[in-house]
Amino acid sequence: MADNGKKLVEQITSMDEDFAKWYTDVVKKADLIDYSSVKGCMIIRPYGYAIWENIQKILDTRFKETGVENVYMPMFIPESLLTKEKEHVEGFAPEVAWVTHGGSERLAERLCVRPTSETLFCEHYANIIKSYRDLPKIYNQWCSVVRWEKTTRPFLRSREFLWQEGHTMHRTAEEAEARTVQMLNVYADFFEKDLAMPVIKGQKTDKEKFAGAKATYTVEALMHDGKALQGGTSHNFGSGFAEAFGIQFLDSDNKLKHCYQTSWGVSTRIIGGIIMTHGDDSGLVLPPSVAPIQVVVIPVQQHKEGVLDAARALADTLKAAGVRVKIDDSEQSPGWKFSEYEMKGVPLRIEIGPRDIAEGKCVIVRRDNREKSFVAVDNIVNEVAAGLENLTKALFEKALRHREERTYTAKTLDELVSIAGEKEGYIKAMWCGELDCEMKLKEEADVTSRCMPFEGDAVSDTCVCCGRAAKKLVYWGKAY
Amino acid sequence: MADNGKKLVEQITSMDEDFAKWYTDVVKKADLIDYSSVKGCMIIRPYGYAIWENIQKILDTRFKETGVENVYMPMFIPESLLTKEKEHVEGFAPEVAWVTHGGSERLAERLCVRPTSETLFCEHYANIIKSYRDLPKIYNQWCSVVRWEKTTRPFLRSREFLWQEGHTMHRTAEEAEARTVQMLNVYADFFEKDLAMPVIKGQKTDKEKFAGAKATYTVEALMHDGKALQGGTSHNFGSGFAEAFGIQFLDSDNKLKHCYQTSWGVSTRIIGGIIMTHGDDSGLVLPPSVAPIQVVVIPVQQHKEGVLDAARALADTLKAAGVRVKIDDSEQSPGWKFSEYEMKGVPLRIEIGPRDIAEGKCVIVRRDNREKSFVAVDNIVNEVAAGLENLTKALFEKALRHREERTYTAKTLDELVSIAGEKEGYIKAMWCGELDCEMKLKEEADVTSRCMPFEGDAVSDTCVCCGRAAKKLVYWGKAY
Repeated sequence: MADNGKKLVEQITSMDEDFAKWYTDVVKKADLIDYSSVKGCMIIRPYGYAIWENIQKILDTRFKETGVENVYMPMFIPESLLTKEKEHVEGFAPEVAWVTHGGSERLAERLCVRPTSETLFCEHYANIIKSYRDLPKIYNQWCSVVRWEKTTRPFLRSREFLWQEGHTMHRTAEEAEARTVQMLNVYADFFEKDLAMPVIKGQKTDKEKFAGAKATYTVEALMHDGKALQGGTSHNFGSGFAEAFGIQFLDSDNKLKHCYQTSWGVSTRIIGGIIMTHGDDSGLVLPPSVAPIQVVVIPVQQHKEGVLDAARALADTLKAAGVRVKIDDSEQSPGWKFSEYEMKGVPLRIEIGPRDIAEGKCVIVRRDNREKSFVAVDNIVNEVAAGLENLTKALFEKALRHREERTYTAKTLDELVSIAGEKEGYIKAMWCGELDCEMKLKEEADVTSRCMPFEGDAVSDTCVCCGRAAKKLVYWGKAY
Repeated sequence: MADNGKKLVEQITSMDEDFAKWYTDVVKKADLIDYSSVKGCMIIRPYGYAIWENIQKILDTRFKETGVENVYMPMFIPESLLTKEKEHVEGFAPEVAWVTHGGSERLAERLCVRPTSETLFCEHYANIIKSYRDLPKIYNQWCSVVRWEKTTRPFLRSREFLWQEGHTMHRTAEEAEARTVQMLNVYADFFEKDLAMPVIKGQKTDKEKFAGAKATYTVEALMHDGKALQGGTSHNFGSGFAEAFGIQFLDSDNKLKHCYQTSWGVSTRIIGGIIMTHGDDSGLVLPPSVAPIQVVVIPVQQHKEGVLDAARALADTLKAAGVRVKIDDSEQSPGWKFSEYEMKGVPLRIEIGPRDIAEGKCVIVRRDNREKSFVAVDNIVNEVAAGLENLTKALFEKALRHREERTYTAKTLDELVSIAGEKEGYIKAMWCGELDCEMKLKEEADVTSRCMPFEGDAVSDTCVCCGRAAKKLVYWGKAY
């Protein structure tokens, strides 16, 4: 076993040696993606897509519990429609793909492949919203979008990616604000409870907010290498788009008013975040909520009488209890199998051999810490449930500790520059609110503002950059 | 009630008066779709999209039971990749949308937006298949595709539509053939059992088969107006694409061999088929399996004490039993509500008022035949289950009778031309197998070959067109 195990593990670069290479190795060796001849786009393979399906199932259920309805909008946006809201088009026009021909004919107007669908939703809402009775509208779509990025990386930045985009319309500014926060909380909850990824909730600075939004809220996660990942965002648009698109309703006071709007989204980026938060030098480590295989059963000395039967019975019991279980009874050695399912991040491995069977027991091995426990086969459903729950908790706690250890505080520019030069992680520092200071920190320390957190005490009274009175606490860092 | 009901019903054109207009009225008034400024593309609204989600859930489960794995391929295909298989590119190149620019830069090579993804799957399979141990590969993807159609109609023909496309690779020709038939049977079963749509299973003629396929199998359904709708197709590609793309595996005899391939798909067209099979002059009639709302509960005299409570209790009981139920306790009149949910095709309506409550009863009204039954509230779960099942059966039987009544037989060209001129429906007639005769029937009778059915006896010995020896029984008709 040791030999075979070692052999596979050696196939990937170690995290500490080259984190970027480790990441690429994992996405390939764990069979998450493949490249194609379409530059900057990736193929999401069955094991990777199954993670996305699990993410979709959980989020879609949560969305619907809050009244969300799914729709499907066209993937094309006429150029004239995209340009209707000024800030929005400035944000997206430089990075869209343009369709100019249909069959052999040149189109009268160019169409872009949606980079996001605010404009289409707005046009539709303008058609269907007439009265306050039509509000709110809480629509979402699951689709793919295209942004013509120059540098790409699987899951983190690709020219096409899968996501969901919610777009809602409300009667009042307060209701829109409440929905913006509500959806951010749905995301935060999903990251922390399901994905075991601790997040900082906060607001983006004007420089970092979404093109056309009044306010952008974000959940930011810290990766193993100390870089930040924007996990999901929720935007309050105020009535800006509604004014540009003429989305008006007759209120109960008989006055015509503009709607208030939100949008919010997460993408297949999440998968990149899971890999870089929980993964280790043996490969993926998947939180059970989204793991395509939660438990792998590996028969030991499988040719001995009764072993395969016992392993299959175990797998059947778990399957009947709703566990996503796989039994690997192939001719590969147990050692090869151990390494293979470690690479694939399967949360629990069950080993069962002749001696275990004689004792009515089996061995459960946890993926995260390789802790072994001998448990009674009769109690396997409870043991597995507890094992999965404990693993989720342990992943969360480990990631939280990691973040705390890599969160620094700076009170002066020198201090910040020095931390940014030596450490990877968040730097908490106060900010006056001026763009100049934000730009200067980028220039001198190569950090950007991740968010102005909703929670957290001031670390000083003055801006870390200019020394004037501070308005906001900001998490600064390097980001994916 | 009668007045309000009448008022709504009058909003749609009657089927007999103008079937095309009736169809457009229904898709709009039942809130299935909306138009946008993107010509030829449609917006699928929440009620329409929920039908698609239900279709997806059922089919995806069935697919996975047969070993299908889901993946996601890029939406773009480089021109050079699309042109790799000759017949395929000839079939699709005239109707694809071309991306020529990314941001402000002209692309070195044009990309088409996928009209179908055989070429991408083949390229991927060539990368990942090395040995007979890697076979079979049974992949599927749910996505949207684009075909630059000139004339479009919601669900039936639009420039962008949603579908699933399965693409599989096999070790032997026999295995590929078996998978082609297996997936056709999954479709046929889904149409007949879940959608209550009887289908003819058969093979397409060479003229009508998929571009690049060796054989195309189809399930064909007959719509209310007597036109046929191709419901789903399953293609056996033989090893043609595998040869063009170099998809080879080392077999156990140590020889390098080409794979055998299939593909199969159904699309949002299905929704058009449901509408045109089961709908009536009051609007949609939805089979319970895919109905977003299976039962609507309408309180009668809802301001009287206890009515709303009883209606809600009823709805809660049904919901707990897994029924998709909605209670409409809005201020609209019961009559308005009756018409509204008839328009939306909700299979069962439950009315409950003060007198019913006193008697421990409620009224169930079936959407298809408006049959009323008074049932005990205590037994509501069983009554609803039976009601939904009976309705599904009745829909199927009605559609089957309709098809039988509109299936004609012709032995001579004159006979066929005369039937095609006077009736709408299928015409069963023998065919010699020559393209000339197929073209002549199109010209003289404006019919196309729908399929060569797997079952069914010869109706004569000679070709209906040329009088030479007949090879095949063919269903001829006009199609969507």
